[in-house]
Amino acid sequence: MRGTTARGGGRADRSGSTPPPGAPTGAAGPTAPPDPTPLHAATPLTADQLRTVDAYWRAANYLAVGQIYLLPNPLLTEPLRPEHIKPRLLGHWGTCPGLNLVYAHLNRVIGERDLDMIHVTGPGHGGPAAVATAWLDGVWSEIHPETGRDAEGMRRLMRQFSFPGGIPSHIAPEVPGSIHEGGELGYALAHAYGAVFDNPGLVAACVVGDGEAETGPAATGWHSNKLLDPVHDGAVLPILHLNGYKIANPTVLARLERRELDALLRGYGHEPIHVDAGDGYDPAAVHQAMAAALDLALDRISAAQRAAREEGSTERPHWPVIVLRSPKGWTGPAEVDGLPVAGTWRSHQVPLAEVRDDASHLAQLESWMRGYRPEELFDEAGRPRPHVLAQVPRGDRRLAANPHANGGRLTRALPLRGARHYAVPVERPGTVAHSPAQTLGRMLRDVLADTAGSRNFRLFGPDETASNKLQAVYEATAKNWQAGYLPVDEHLARDGRVLEMLSEHNCQGWLEGYLLTGRHGVFASYEAFVHIVSSMLNQHAKWLKVSRELPWRMPVPSLNYLLTSHVWRQDHNGFSHQDPGFVDHVANKSPQVVRVYLPPDANTLLAVADKALASRDLINVIIAGKHPSFDWLGIDDALAHVERGVSVWEWAGSDVGGRPDVVLAAAGDTPTLEIMATASLLRLHLPELRVRVVNVVNLMRLLPAEEHPEGMTDRDYDAVFPPGTPVIFGYHGYPWFVHRLTYRRNGHPDLHVRGYKEEGTTTTPFDMVVRNDLDRYRLVMDVIDRVPGLVDRGITLRQRMQDQRLRHHDWIREHGEDLPEVREWVWQW
Amino acid sequence: MRGTTARGGGRADRSGSTPPPGAPTGAAGPTAPPDPTPLHAATPLTADQLRTVDAYWRAANYLAVGQIYLLPNPLLTEPLRPEHIKPRLLGHWGTCPGLNLVYAHLNRVIGERDLDMIHVTGPGHGGPAAVATAWLDGVWSEIHPETGRDAEGMRRLMRQFSFPGGIPSHIAPEVPGSIHEGGELGYALAHAYGAVFDNPGLVAACVVGDGEAETGPAATGWHSNKLLDPVHDGAVLPILHLNGYKIANPTVLARLERRELDALLRGYGHEPIHVDAGDGYDPAAVHQAMAAALDLALDRISAAQRAAREEGSTERPHWPVIVLRSPKGWTGPAEVDGLPVAGTWRSHQVPLAEVRDDASHLAQLESWMRGYRPEELFDEAGRPRPHVLAQVPRGDRRLAANPHANGGRLTRALPLRGARHYAVPVERPGTVAHSPAQTLGRMLRDVLADTAGSRNFRLFGPDETASNKLQAVYEATAKNWQAGYLPVDEHLARDGRVLEMLSEHNCQGWLEGYLLTGRHGVFASYEAFVHIVSSMLNQHAKWLKVSRELPWRMPVPSLNYLLTSHVWRQDHNGFSHQDPGFVDHVANKSPQVVRVYLPPDANTLLAVADKALASRDLINVIIAGKHPSFDWLGIDDALAHVERGVSVWEWAGSDVGGRPDVVLAAAGDTPTLEIMATASLLRLHLPELRVRVVNVVNLMRLLPAEEHPEGMTDRDYDAVFPPGTPVIFGYHGYPWFVHRLTYRRNGHPDLHVRGYKEEGTTTTPFDMVVRNDLDRYRLVMDVIDRVPGLVDRGITLRQRMQDQRLRHHDWIREHGEDLPEVREWVWQW
Repeated sequence: MRGTTARGGGRADRSGSTPPPGAPTGAAGPTAPPDPTPLHAATPLTADQLRTVDAYWRAANYLAVGQIYLLPNPLLTEPLRPEHIKPRLLGHWGTCPGLNLVYAHLNRVIGERDLDMIHVTGPGHGGPAAVATAWLDGVWSEIHPETGRDAEGMRRLMRQFSFPGGIPSHIAPEVPGSIHEGGELGYALAHAYGAVFDNPGLVAACVVGDGEAETGPAATGWHSNKLLDPVHDGAVLPILHLNGYKIANPTVLARLERRELDALLRGYGHEPIHVDAGDGYDPAAVHQAMAAALDLALDRISAAQRAAREEGSTERPHWPVIVLRSPKGWTGPAEVDGLPVAGTWRSHQVPLAEVRDDASHLAQLESWMRGYRPEELFDEAGRPRPHVLAQVPRGDRRLAANPHANGGRLTRALPLRGARHYAVPVERPGTVAHSPAQTLGRMLRDVLADTAGSRNFRLFGPDETASNKLQAVYEATAKNWQAGYLPVDEHLARDGRVLEMLSEHNCQGWLEGYLLTGRHGVFASYEAFVHIVSSMLNQHAKWLKVSRELPWRMPVPSLNYLLTSHVWRQDHNGFSHQDPGFVDHVANKSPQVVRVYLPPDANTLLAVADKALASRDLINVIIAGKHPSFDWLGIDDALAHVERGVSVWEWAGSDVGGRPDVVLAAAGDTPTLEIMATASLLRLHLPELRVRVVNVVNLMRLLPAEEHPEGMTDRDYDAVFPPGTPVIFGYHGYPWFVHRLTYRRNGHPDLHVRGYKEEGTTTTPFDMVVRNDLDRYRLVMDVIDRVPGLVDRGITLRQRMQDQRLRHHDWIREHGEDLPEVREWVWQW
Repeated sequence: MRGTTARGGGRADRSGSTPPPGAPTGAAGPTAPPDPTPLHAATPLTADQLRTVDAYWRAANYLAVGQIYLLPNPLLTEPLRPEHIKPRLLGHWGTCPGLNLVYAHLNRVIGERDLDMIHVTGPGHGGPAAVATAWLDGVWSEIHPETGRDAEGMRRLMRQFSFPGGIPSHIAPEVPGSIHEGGELGYALAHAYGAVFDNPGLVAACVVGDGEAETGPAATGWHSNKLLDPVHDGAVLPILHLNGYKIANPTVLARLERRELDALLRGYGHEPIHVDAGDGYDPAAVHQAMAAALDLALDRISAAQRAAREEGSTERPHWPVIVLRSPKGWTGPAEVDGLPVAGTWRSHQVPLAEVRDDASHLAQLESWMRGYRPEELFDEAGRPRPHVLAQVPRGDRRLAANPHANGGRLTRALPLRGARHYAVPVERPGTVAHSPAQTLGRMLRDVLADTAGSRNFRLFGPDETASNKLQAVYEATAKNWQAGYLPVDEHLARDGRVLEMLSEHNCQGWLEGYLLTGRHGVFASYEAFVHIVSSMLNQHAKWLKVSRELPWRMPVPSLNYLLTSHVWRQDHNGFSHQDPGFVDHVANKSPQVVRVYLPPDANTLLAVADKALASRDLINVIIAGKHPSFDWLGIDDALAHVERGVSVWEWAGSDVGGRPDVVLAAAGDTPTLEIMATASLLRLHLPELRVRVVNVVNLMRLLPAEEHPEGMTDRDYDAVFPPGTPVIFGYHGYPWFVHRLTYRRNGHPDLHVRGYKEEGTTTTPFDMVVRNDLDRYRLVMDVIDRVPGLVDRGITLRQRMQDQRLRHHDWIREHGEDLPEVREWVWQW
C-alpha cells in the first residue's frame, strides 16, 4: 500500500524559518511499511504559469491581510500610520494563505481543462481569502460596482470586511461562489457531495481543514463516496489541508504518522496524493507539487468516470484525496514579541494585535504586506496586473461565478401531479384509517418517477424510508448503493435516488448541498432524532435569511423535513425516542424562513406536501404519523384547510353559529384523535354544550401577523378563538410552546394546553396520551373544570371520566393493549 | 500491513443455511495486499468451557426470544398456544444473539483474569439481551426479588419486557450494568472512553454496531484513543459487530473489502483482530475464534499498559479492536413465509410477526425456542443449571453489578475551596470590569490541582479552553495529548486532565461516561455550537430522569455546561455564531433535572459554579461571558443572589420601598449592562420615576413552583414583579422564552421582553444590542411607552433616545467602534 507523493521540482529551501506543521516525533512501529515514494517529481508549471500562480497567490494574500487591518491606504502608497489601521482587528488569518494557494491552482486547472467546478471551503472562517479571490476574479465588482477592481474599490473591499455595515468575517452567503458557511465546522464534505449528486459534469473541490476533520460529521462525511454514482453524479475532490493547528491546539490528523493517516484515508475509500515540497515550504516547490497533485487527481477522476461511463465498470473507484501540508499563517510574521507565530496556532486570528499602539507591530505589518511586492501585483490605479489574472477562467467558469453556487439560477420547478391525484376517499370522517406517510409515499414515488430524466429530486433518510412507510418510492427508484451486492438485497441500485445512511448529519448536509445547487428534496427522519441536526438547521436558516436579503442570490427550493415515527407512537422504542421539541427550536429562527405543519390526516398531509414542494427559500417542517390513523377530511376540505391553516370544523362541533361554550382545538394527528373523541363524549353526555372544534395545520398561523408572515391578524384569531371562551388545546408537542405562540392574543388567558411532558416509556398508544394528560377522559374533565357553570352539571360525568382512566390503567397492565372502547372507537356523528 | 485473524479450530459447517453477512462481491483492486493470515488457529476453550459458553449463550438467546413473545409458559412446559403470546410484539431481536455471544465470552475472561470490566453496548435496542444476561447472572433478581431466578421469575421477566407497567425495550437506566442508553446511536465509544479515563484498572468492552458506525459521532469517537493515557487511564476494547444490516439496508462497513476495513481501523489507531470461523457460523468454531480473539486482545492491552506503566514507553499503542461478523438474527428463523430472515435485515425487530393469528408462525416460534434445548439450560423449577452459570463472575465482578456502571456508588465529593476564595473586589458596582470566565478559570484551576491525586475531575472542551479564557487551569494540569510533540507546543502532556478535541460530540460523550462512572466535570463550549449536542442532552436528561426514579441507582455528579463566547459577543465571528436557544431546548426536559443560570458578573459566576459542582443528578447550564464586563456584586451579595435566584437590586433603583412605577429586569450579563444603563438614564432624566431593578440569575425561578422544583410561588413572584406594574425585561436569549416561563403569572400582561431575534452579524458589541432592540436607548423608549402617564412627560427624552440610536448607527459606520459615551459608560450612582 504505497502512497503517492506529488513532489515539486523546485529546490526545497531548508533554511526557511517556518517550522513544518506536525512532523510527528513518534518512532515508527514494528510493522511500518516502506515510506511512500514520490510518483511525481514533475514540474508541470511552465515558468510563466509559475509566475502567474505565485503572483495571484501573493495578491490574494495581500488583499486578505489588508482586509483584516486597513481602512485607507490600500496600496501602501504612503507609509503605514496608526490611523490607517482598523480600531478593532477582527478576522482569521491562519487559514487564508492555504486557501488562497488552493484557489490559485484551481483557477489554472479550470482554464486548462474547461472544468465546471465549485469550491467548498470547510475552513470558512478564512473569509478574507474568498473575498480577495472573488474580487481578483472580477466577480465581486460585478455584484458591487462601487467596489471596482481599482484602488478605491480595494479600499472599500478592505474597509468593509468585518466592519459595521460591511460583510461578515466568515465565508457566508455574501460571498459569491459559496454554498457553505464556514462558521460551524464539519459539513464541507456533505455539502460538496450534495452539490455533485446528479451533476455528472461538476467537480466540487472541497477543502477540509484538519480542525474540521476532528468533528463527527466530517469523520462520517468521508463515507459519502459509498453513495456516489460515477455515472450520474459528479466528483468531489477533497483537499485535506493540514496546517497543523486549531485555535490553540495541534490537530489530530496532522500529528499522525503518514502511514496511519494514509491508512485512514484509504479506509475512507480514497487514494491519498501528498503535496510534498520539503520542509522549507519554498513557494516555487509547493506550487509545482500542488500543480502536479491537482493534475494527477483530476486525471484519476476523469479515468474513474470514463471507466464507469464508457467501459461499464461497476467497481467503486478509489477517488483521489489531496493532502496539503502548509504552515498555519504561512507568509505571515514568523515571530512576534519573541514568540513563534507563522506555523503555529498563534496565527489563527490576528498575528499582530497591537498595530495601532505598538510602532514595532505597525512596522512589522508594513514589512509583511510589502513582502508580497504589491507594486508587482497592482498597477498605480490599483488594478490587478494582467499577469496576475492570466489564469483566471472566464465568465461562469470562475469559481465565484459558477451558477451551481447560486443554485436558484438553475432551479427548475418540480413536476407535481397535485394532491388530488393521491387522495384517499373519505365517505364518513373518523371511520376509515390510512397511513399518512404511506399515502405520501405514493406522491413521492411519482415525483421521483417524473424526475427520472431531469434527476433533480431526491429523498434522504437515515435508513428509515421503509420504516417510515414511504416504500412506494421504490417503485420509481432505488436506494443508492455502490458497495458489494448480495442476492438477498432489495431496492438497491447504483443510480438510485434515495440516499440512506445511518447519519442524520450526512442526510442533512447532502440535502443542503443539493438544494443550494438548485435541486429539490425531502429529508424523512424520526422526529426525536432530527435533533441530531439542530445545529445544522441553525446554519441553514441563517444562510437562507441572509440570502433572501441579497438580490443576486436567486431563491432555492425549500428544505423539507418529514418527521414521522413521532413522539406519540414509539411503541417499539419508548422514552428515548420521544421528543417533539424540534419545532420549538425551528420556531426560534427567522420567521421569514420557517414553517411548521401538523396535518391531522392523510389527505391534509398530501395538501401540505404539495405546497411545500413548490415553495422556495423556506424550511418546512412537516410532522405526520406513519401508522394508520383516521381520515377526517376529503381532499377538497384538506386543500382548503391547508389554505386557511386554521379551520373551524363545523361538522364536528355542536356550535350552531353563536358563541361556543368551549373551543376544542388540536394540532397533530394524535391530539386530533383525542380532541375528536372528547367532542364526541361531550356531545353524547352534555348535548346542550356548544362545542366548537378547531384544527390547526399551519402552526405559525397562531403567531401574530406582525411576528410572522403566516401569522393571523388578531381579528381572525378572535373569530376562531373568541376571547372569554375557554379553549382546550390538544397539542402534539410541549404544551408551553402553544403559549409561546399565543401569549399576545386577547384570548390567551382562556387557553389551556395539553401536550407532551417527558412522561412516557414503551407502552400502548392510548397509555401514552394518558400518561401525558392528553387523553379524551382527561380533556373532558378539563372542559368541566373550565366552562363556567359546568362543574355542577358535569360532576357525575367527571367522576366517570376519572374512573375510566383508572380502569384503563389496570386494563393495560392486565392485557397489554388498550381498552376495547378506545381501540374500537369511531366517529359516529 | 497484515491483519490478525482469530480463527476457531472447530470445523466450519459450510452447509449452514445462514448466509454470511456482507461478503463483498467487488473485485480486489490492482494494489491489493495479500489477505490477512490467521495468527490464531487456536482452540483456547476446553471442552467444558466450550459447553458452558455455548449453554450460557443459548440460555440468553432463549430468554431474549421469550421476552419478545411470551406472557406465561416461560419454560414451554406445555405446547405453545396463541394466548401465551403477547398481543403486541415489540422489541429488536436482530442484534441480540451477537450481544449475548459477546457477553458470554466476557464472563469467561473476567473470571479467568479477574478483570474489572464494564460493557457498553452500542446496539442498545437489543434490550432483551442485556436483561437476559443480568437475570442469568443473578443481578436482576437481587434488585427485583419478585423476579427470582426460577420459573415464576422467568415468567415475570418475559412478561414485563416492553409491556405496560414493565420495562422499556432498549438498554436503559432500568438495566443494571449499563451506562449507555441504546436508543439513539453513535455515542458508545465516547461513553466507553469517558468511563475509563482516570480508571486505570478498568476495561470497557464496547460493542459498536455496524449501523452505529455510520454515524458521525461514532466515526470520530474512534479517535478518542488519541487522548487516552495508558498510564492513568484504563482501556477500551471496541468490538465492531458486523451483522451486516441496519433497519432495512446493508451497512457500509460490512460491505467494505477487508483490506479497506482494516485500513480504516488502522487509521483509527487500532490493530484489528478478526473473529473468523468460516462462512457457516458453526457455533463451536465461532466460540473458539471469539475466545482466541478476546485472549489476544486482552493480552495486547496488558502489554501496552505494561509498556507504558513499567517500561516508560511513550508511544501511543495501537490498541486492539475485535471485528466480529455474525449473521443478524443468528439462530432465529432462517426463512419466514418463503423469505430469508436470519442473516438479513428482516431479523431487525420481530422475525415472526403473526404468531397469534398464524398457526405456522406459532409452530415456527415454538421450534425456534425449543431449538435452544431449554431443558438442558434450566431445571424443572426454572433455575439455570450449574453448568450454564459456571463462568459467571462473582459479586461486583459481574458485568451487571460492576459499581462503575452505577457510578454514584463510587462518587467522592469534590474538594471545593468556596467561591469567596476567588472573589474579585467590588468597591463600587459597575465601575471595574473582570472577565467572568477568567475568574472562574482560577476556581477550576484549584479544583484540578486539588484532585491531582484523586483524579476525579476533568475539563472538556472543543479546542476552546484558552479562547474561553479558562487558561488558568494550565497552572494545574495540561491538555491531554498522546501524539507527537513539537518544540512549539504549550500546555500539552500525556497525563493532562483537560480534554480538547474539535468534536462537541466527543466532549459531551466523554463527560457523560465520566459522570455516570461517578466522577465530576465541566464542558465549556461556545454557546451557539452546543446545539451540536442537543440530541445527546435529550438522552442524558432522560437517563437522569429515569435514574432518579430507581432507588438502586445512586446519584451521580451533575453535567455542568459552561456556555461562554455567547451570542452578544461574537465580534470575530458574526451571525453564524449567534444562537442563544440551547436554554429553550434544555427547559423542555424534565424539570427534576434541568437548571439554567445566567450570572451577571464574575462573583455571581463563582457562586453559581460552586453550587453546580456540588450538585448531583442535574444538568446545570451556566451562561457567562469571557470578555471583561462590569462587576455588580461583591461576593457576599453574589452568594445571596444565587441563593435567592431572583433579587431586587435596591441599590440600583429609585424605588423607595413603595410600589414602583416600572420594573427593569435582566437575565444575562449583556442585558444586565443595558438594563443598568437604562436605569441610570431614567434616574438622570426622570428622577421622579420609581424604578425597581431586578436581576434573575436562576432562570427556572421564573416558572411556577408547581412546574419546577426551583420555581417561585406566585406570592414571591408578585412581590418582585407587582401585578399591574410594567416590567421591561432584558433577556439574554429569545424574548418569547421568558413568556414561555411566565405566562401563568399574574403580572404576565405587564411583561415586555427584549432579547435576541436573529438579527446580527459581525459588528460592535453595542451595535449587536441595538440591532436586537435591547439597547439602553430603546429600553428607555419602552419605559416611556408603557408606564401610564409617561408619554407626555417623556416625549422629549423619547426623541433624544431615538436620535441617539440614529447617531450610533452613523457613528459606528464611520469609526468602526461604539459611541464614546457607550464605551466609557460607568455606573455613577
